[in-house]
Amino acid sequence: MGLSTAFTELFGVEHPIVLAPMGGSAGGALAAAVSRGGGLGLLGSGNGDREWLARELPVLAGACAGKPWGIGFQTWAIDDGAIARALEQGPTAVMLSFGDPGPFAERVRGAGTALILQVTDLEEARRAVDLGADVIVAQGTEAGAHGARHGRSTLPFVPVVADLAAPVPVLAAGGIADGRGVAAALALGAAGALLGTRFQATTEALIAPATARAIVEGRGEDTERNRVLDLARGSRWPAQYTARTLSHPFLDAWRGREDELAADPHARQAYQDAVTRGEIPPLPQWAGEGIDLIDDLPSAADLVGTLAAQAEEALARAGRR
Amino acid sequence: MGLSTAFTELFGVEHPIVLAPMGGSAGGALAAAVSRGGGLGLLGSGNGDREWLARELPVLAGACAGKPWGIGFQTWAIDDGAIARALEQGPTAVMLSFGDPGPFAERVRGAGTALILQVTDLEEARRAVDLGADVIVAQGTEAGAHGARHGRSTLPFVPVVADLAAPVPVLAAGGIADGRGVAAALALGAAGALLGTRFQATTEALIAPATARAIVEGRGEDTERNRVLDLARGSRWPAQYTARTLSHPFLDAWRGREDELAADPHARQAYQDAVTRGEIPPLPQWAGEGIDLIDDLPSAADLVGTLAAQAEEALARAGRR
Repeated sequence: MGLSTAFTELFGVEHPIVLAPMGGSAGGALAAAVSRGGGLGLLGSGNGDREWLARELPVLAGACAGKPWGIGFQTWAIDDGAIARALEQGPTAVMLSFGDPGPFAERVRGAGTALILQVTDLEEARRAVDLGADVIVAQGTEAGAHGARHGRSTLPFVPVVADLAAPVPVLAAGGIADGRGVAAALALGAAGALLGTRFQATTEALIAPATARAIVEGRGEDTERNRVLDLARGSRWPAQYTARTLSHPFLDAWRGREDELAADPHARQAYQDAVTRGEIPPLPQWAGEGIDLIDDLPSAADLVGTLAAQAEEALARAGRR
Repeated sequence: MGLSTAFTELFGVEHPIVLAPMGGSAGGALAAAVSRGGGLGLLGSGNGDREWLARELPVLAGACAGKPWGIGFQTWAIDDGAIARALEQGPTAVMLSFGDPGPFAERVRGAGTALILQVTDLEEARRAVDLGADVIVAQGTEAGAHGARHGRSTLPFVPVVADLAAPVPVLAAGGIADGRGVAAALALGAAGALLGTRFQATTEALIAPATARAIVEGRGEDTERNRVLDLARGSRWPAQYTARTLSHPFLDAWRGREDELAADPHARQAYQDAVTRGEIPPLPQWAGEGIDLIDDLPSAADLVGTLAAQAEEALARAGRR
């Protein structure tokens, strides 16, 4: 019998643990493993790329054993069609992050699908409540990959969102990489935790082996929020979002000179050439500040249970009188 | 019967709650109130100013009812004499923050006084263990007032320090302003929580009424780490420390131009003139990111018990199966 929260009751899942829908790397195998392990797996569909979904959805369906699952999108990158195609697949939940969810909220809820909205400040949290979100994810600036340029830290942000959103269940995200972090999320008033980087370092993640190793070996102080690597690789991410990455030669070369980099096609070409020559990986190594706590590469299906057991133990220890 | 941790057992206190020794504002009445309330009160002696201590120590002695108490210093600002004078008063603990505690550690421990060392990264944490710290405070960047320029966030930082320091008890600091934060600290593996800003907004704090009101009314997103206000007021704080403050006209005027400000005596004079004319307060309004959670001005003695009860409740709720 696992920890019971408003989130586990709403979705009928065993553990209050959710896979962050990391664009590209949270594929069918990983999402299915998390759902099979007793959490909620969310496919990382990013901009709703049809080819990627056509490949990953059957993998998910074949492995999730009938458990609840969902699909996550980058809100700024999608249109109605992406939502419609997702809903056709019958997900338990659709999660929208980064951008105005207004145009899509009614369509998701109207399909009887749970709407999960990720927020990075109190204004977004209020908007999520107004749009009728079934679950709100409060993302702190410790999170790996993309988030608000002027973000909040998870520990002081989550309880404020929980108060604002009540009775809507809130998930904590950002910097959570072991069961103690899951326990802390619940103590703060969240109904669960959403983990990204921790699930990157699993056997099911769609991730370059070198990046998985870098996460296992890296330290939180080696991670840094920046826009440099999005500019260097010519990404369309809007300027109000930065991404937390591990160190990178282009980051060292261009830190603090974002405007110059944005205006310099030669620099972008140099980045592409370095990728082509195999000197740098095709993608930045996105990683959260919690990576000090990651030192293995387990199966995600096993990991969910391990995290839940650690969280129960941490809460029992913390509550000792 | 309160929550029991390695910290409460070490000091024989009722609750795992510690007053941050905020320079100037954590005076005798506030430290005594926190100790009397069942936590550990630490006088905020800053640079060891004799006059301030001569005024505040009798207040403390008269009000702390024989409970444990301590004195905190800014390590970079003191000499042996300050430590010697503190030890003459028979504190239960001496806390050192910001700077190399090496020259003072042996003297404190040799007097049979508990040595509390505050750290902001893993290198400092290792050094604190090596120096024989009895308690280590892991300070996150959410904290009000001073901290490391390149700080860590509390939630992912605390468990790493707890692992590194074990069995030395660790206190979590930064962004904790209600009982849920205290509960989260314990869930993360800390043996207690150290709170600053929350105790500023109490009847016993030595703080301008306007600043107390600003804390009660302010929001976490209105706080910002900066060095501008230290430069503007001609403070001696070393460059590797910034301070989290509420908004301020001089911060808006000089943000991002620290080097220019440091070289401009006219700007510093303008700051002093504005203070003299009463246009800006004499001190920056230091405040942590947790201020959204602060909406009253209770007695600190009562607040300790309230926080402890909230923490117990939060842990019981979080641990529900």
